Amino acid sequence: MLYFSCDYAEGCHPKVLEALTKSNMVSTPGYGEDIYCQSAKEKIKEYIKCPDADIYFLVGGTQTNQTVIDSMLSNYEGVVAAETGHVAVHEAGAIEYSGHKVITIPNHDGKIDAGELKQLIADHYSDGSCEHMVHPGMVYISYPTEYGTIYTRKELEDISSICKEYDIPLFIDGARLAYGLAAQNDLTMADIAALSDVFYIGGTKVGALFGEAVVFTKGNTPKHIITQIKQHGALLAKGRLLGVQFDALFTDDLYMNMGKSAVEHANTIREYLKEKGYTFYIDNPTNQIFVVMSNKELDVLKTKLEYGFWEKYDNTHTVIRIATSWATNSDQVEELKKIL
Amino acid sequence: MLYFSCDYAEGCHPKVLEALTKSNMVSTPGYGEDIYCQSAKEKIKEYIKCPDADIYFLVGGTQTNQTVIDSMLSNYEGVVAAETGHVAVHEAGAIEYSGHKVITIPNHDGKIDAGELKQLIADHYSDGSCEHMVHPGMVYISYPTEYGTIYTRKELEDISSICKEYDIPLFIDGARLAYGLAAQNDLTMADIAALSDVFYIGGTKVGALFGEAVVFTKGNTPKHIITQIKQHGALLAKGRLLGVQFDALFTDDLYMNMGKSAVEHANTIREYLKEKGYTFYIDNPTNQIFVVMSNKELDVLKTKLEYGFWEKYDNTHTVIRIATSWATNSDQVEELKKIL
Amino acid sequence: MLYFSCDYAEGCHPKVLEALTKSNMVSTPGYGEDIYCQSAKEKIKEYIKCPDADIYFLVGGTQTNQTVIDSMLSNYEGVVAAETGHVAVHEAGAIEYSGHKVITIPNHDGKIDAGELKQLIADHYSDGSCEHMVHPGMVYISYPTEYGTIYTRKELEDISSICKEYDIPLFIDGARLAYGLAAQNDLTMADIAALSDVFYIGGTKVGALFGEAVVFTKGNTPKHIITQIKQHGALLAKGRLLGVQFDALFTDDLYMNMGKSAVEHANTIREYLKEKGYTFYIDNPTNQIFVVMSNKELDVLKTKLEYGFWEKYDNTHTVIRIATSWATNSDQVEELKKIL
Amino acid sequence: MLYFSCDYAEGCHPKVLEALTKSNMVSTPGYGEDIYCQSAKEKIKEYIKCPDADIYFLVGGTQTNQTVIDSMLSNYEGVVAAETGHVAVHEAGAIEYSGHKVITIPNHDGKIDAGELKQLIADHYSDGSCEHMVHPGMVYISYPTEYGTIYTRKELEDISSICKEYDIPLFIDGARLAYGLAAQNDLTMADIAALSDVFYIGGTKVGALFGEAVVFTKGNTPKHIITQIKQHGALLAKGRLLGVQFDALFTDDLYMNMGKSAVEHANTIREYLKEKGYTFYIDNPTNQIFVVMSNKELDVLKTKLEYGFWEKYDNTHTVIRIATSWATNSDQVEELKKIL
Repeated sequence: MLYFSCDYAEGCHPKVLEALTKSNMVSTPGYGEDIYCQSAKEKIKEYIKCPDADIYFLVGGTQTNQTVIDSMLSNYEGVVAAETGHVAVHEAGAIEYSGHKVITIPNHDGKIDAGELKQLIADHYSDGSCEHMVHPGMVYISYPTEYGTIYTRKELEDISSICKEYDIPLFIDGARLAYGLAAQNDLTMADIAALSDVFYIGGTKVGALFGEAVVFTKGNTPKHIITQIKQHGALLAKGRLLGVQFDALFTDDLYMNMGKSAVEHANTIREYLKEKGYTFYIDNPTNQIFVVMSNKELDVLKTKLEYGFWEKYDNTHTVIRIATSWATNSDQVEELKKIL
Repeated sequence: MLYFSCDYAEGCHPKVLEALTKSNMVSTPGYGEDIYCQSAKEKIKEYIKCPDADIYFLVGGTQTNQTVIDSMLSNYEGVVAAETGHVAVHEAGAIEYSGHKVITIPNHDGKIDAGELKQLIADHYSDGSCEHMVHPGMVYISYPTEYGTIYTRKELEDISSICKEYDIPLFIDGARLAYGLAAQNDLTMADIAALSDVFYIGGTKVGALFGEAVVFTKGNTPKHIITQIKQHGALLAKGRLLGVQFDALFTDDLYMNMGKSAVEHANTIREYLKEKGYTFYIDNPTNQIFVVMSNKELDVLKTKLEYGFWEKYDNTHTVIRIATSWATNSDQVEELKKIL
Repeated sequence: MLYFSCDYAEGCHPKVLEALTKSNMVSTPGYGEDIYCQSAKEKIKEYIKCPDADIYFLVGGTQTNQTVIDSMLSNYEGVVAAETGHVAVHEAGAIEYSGHKVITIPNHDGKIDAGELKQLIADHYSDGSCEHMVHPGMVYISYPTEYGTIYTRKELEDISSICKEYDIPLFIDGARLAYGLAAQNDLTMADIAALSDVFYIGGTKVGALFGEAVVFTKGNTPKHIITQIKQHGALLAKGRLLGVQFDALFTDDLYMNMGKSAVEHANTIREYLKEKGYTFYIDNPTNQIFVVMSNKELDVLKTKLEYGFWEKYDNTHTVIRIATSWATNSDQVEELKKIL
Repeated sequence: MLYFSCDYAEGCHPKVLEALTKSNMVSTPGYGEDIYCQSAKEKIKEYIKCPDADIYFLVGGTQTNQTVIDSMLSNYEGVVAAETGHVAVHEAGAIEYSGHKVITIPNHDGKIDAGELKQLIADHYSDGSCEHMVHPGMVYISYPTEYGTIYTRKELEDISSICKEYDIPLFIDGARLAYGLAAQNDLTMADIAALSDVFYIGGTKVGALFGEAVVFTKGNTPKHIITQIKQHGALLAKGRLLGVQFDALFTDDLYMNMGKSAVEHANTIREYLKEKGYTFYIDNPTNQIFVVMSNKELDVLKTKLEYGFWEKYDNTHTVIRIATSWATNSDQVEELKKIL
């Protein structure tokens, strides 16, 4: 059985495992106050060219979104997100549980539009009833988006400058950051740091067992952030596990290399699907491929391939997701081509 | 430098690491719907002699306490805990953040007293203003307690029967469960399951990288528990990591053997301290030793030993914690004896 | 200056004031345990033909919505509402503050469509990721809606039967209930009680100083509701003030008579506006009139009339709200006609 | 039947009712943006000699405590209160519902001790685990306390200066403020304003139908406070009702005169009880009297007098509360003396 259904199906990259194994019996203080976390933070700061960045490691994406958003918003504020954003749909109400509204804005293949964002904020403040409404207190975007699309540099700059104009922080969810950057020529992680107020570098989907590195880029770390992380149940006792992993990810360009590998494999599959005449549900350049299949084909395919069900296309067709990852290799891609 | 300051200073037991390594490149579904979790659950159910138990794996202790308590309480209920209980003091308000009061009750070396518990509940319901007060909706105890003490079987039975009488669930925090059971002759994990409504088996402090196994023992799993775990940011994407670890912990009695080893080492140290005439701050039988040291001694000791600061004893003395763990070996104990 | 900008601009109906004055120095127990509340509840139960109804009096609308929704939903549930619903827009995030998502659905002149509701719920449960999403746990509609429109009997029956099918309670926000029922021939308050699981009878906008009567119609009062009301800061110490007022409102048909009077006055104004050739923004039959005015006209009008600004229509026109109420009299209507 | 069981048993002072009656049919904007609120605020500011005070009117005490505390605390902060404080015991968990811990400190006849407060805060910050604990973010005291006792000027000054030292706001709950000030010679409402960061002037128990005036005394009003009040369900639509009442309360010294009257009546009763040889449970000088009665006496008394049950004293005695109020008159006091 071939496995292309998601990018969190395996454990971690062998180099990460090696680092965990090597450090396994070393004794360190808990809660992230160890040398591995320190080292990983230094490497990341250098990589993103942001020497004053303040970095914290958390375990998973929903936890990270909840903690970052709740700790940065005031009571009276909500977070603006695409109606398809992870925080708006697939986090089981984790943001609302923390007391904040997700203010939704239309999506365009998963992306928000700078003009619509500006309008939403401007409309809010010109509304005579705005004191009876949740104030927009942060903008959340995912890069890449939940549909595997990416913002152009220009689009990011526009969103960033609207946020600056209204003094609202921009938060970039980088659960699949490496896969986005690998698909884009003119944008680096340093640009992400420069354009955002806070972002996170996803480890879970890019070669780590788990872990997301939250980066506060503008000297804007919320006060007593450790207490807030703890309060959200998000402070890992053996915090060094996160340090060890991110230290490995940011050694010898491992993180970005894994991103490139996954995107190259995805492109190979994409080309093949194009040749075969398949219809793409979304035209996107990262590690996730959304393709329309007839239900008949799927009846056969599902005996050989684990794919992701995305949504019903019409009565006889379905949109499926084929995801490559850091763990995908050429043999698997060749085998996939054979059965498609 | 010797390290006896806590029981979460190292990675994981070699057998756990071996299991993680072996399964590393296997592809599985996410969120705990994998064969490793399945297998671990079966082993635990058999071990605790509770075939109908319903088991979920979470990452850390505070997260587990918050999720279990919030999902089992109604809005109008709080959780009763010792004033020294982890949920009352050292979770940064994680319970209150979820909307619930921690109703404190006096501690006796970390334990609550059944009679005082009964009185507190009875007083509540006989108070004419009780509808203006938070209702006691759960009893939380830790076994062993934060002071390393353990309840006798009789004490647990009494607390359990009061909970039954008032139809209030009993939740046992077993962050260090193995170390408690290893120190007690007449109590098994099956007894813990029988006497409680929900409890958790701590992995983080007993040989796992991380992980706590929550056991609902009485067909009382809260509805849509997966949604609730997700909402609390506590659903691990690669849930199989928890399954793999707990599967290893419950193979060949590894979990309990680690508990016994740590307690034996602690007892050796205890004997030695007694011989040397040290005063114990608390007389307790598990892996944590609380001993009074003169500040002068500590000035020397701290250059050779990492210990836990517990609290000031008087102007010239301090209470320190010496903790053994699954990772402690005889060489370390001998070395410790030399420097004490 | 004429005042037609809203329906909460004056104090209370003279009969309500009379009742408050008469009872002013009587000593009663607090928190709603008095004879006035008892009497008011009996009158309402009889009026809605629902002898087993369970009734609680709260002070204001947002408070009532928050308390009802939070006390009836489980942690993992959200409330489905029109994107224009009061709970979705104008309650400053009061629902999210209580931990719950407002799941929005398109509005049609303020109303939700039964078919779309059914689709939303069905889609939710057929979504493979639904355990990662907030579950629909209640349907909220306002009657009349925020746009002064009303559901037909058939529409209400359809929504009610979908709720029953999925075992999701239907909550009807009746902040302006009298003005809705007065505009509809074939629907009574008893029908509202029969079709809903919980609804509230708005007093604030219909002749009371303040007060909303929450009616649980199906033996479905949340447990310890008094504790929950108190927890939401919504338990009035001198609860009898609410009893006194609702007792007066439900004596000699005062409540419905006020509704009829306001709607008749609104209809008179509507006729006049039609004659004069004005464009209505929404075609609706209750006490609120939404009419398009040229900005030039408004420049003059605003020196003589307090109206409600609704929204910009185009660059030269504005939608304004003209609201009648229980306090509106014929002289005022005649005067309004003169200046229009 | 004589009624001395609480100080919220009647409606409002005749002058307050007169003001409500007089203004009843005047049309005003909602939500407190009316001339009555404006006038009341000016009068209060002058009375408390605090021209820059920022004042908001809310409906009830629990609501006020919840809104003030939640809007002033950061996520990671709790409020320090006496273990007997209203927020700690009798608000059904309203503070925890808003996400914050009530950090309790011992009470001394309802009061907290400045030295113990300082110790608690100092201990917190010197605790190596303090980042894993809720930080003390506000001090809450009630004046008078729940036991009818009052702080001396010196005690208040000491508490206030500790708060300043640690930059923690001091919040004074003045639900019965008039009754406290009337019992104390050397303290004025202006002193309360000067010594606190925020306090509220209780109307509900002192002559209003309802209403508490929150005063931010140091230019420290939380941002978007109206949005936050709305979010807590605490924004009254007809806000002018609060303005009308407080305007009357602060006209011709009505508020303080009512306080004095109640305290004088209480003192008369106290003298009489002393003469008769009764034991006082607490020696306190305000409008509440806590006296020990034999259960036999009470069997007779309860047929003639509504008193407040306070608590069981011993097997044959009970502590009862006799409360005077603005509504108490000399005839009632004389009648009470007859039946005691």
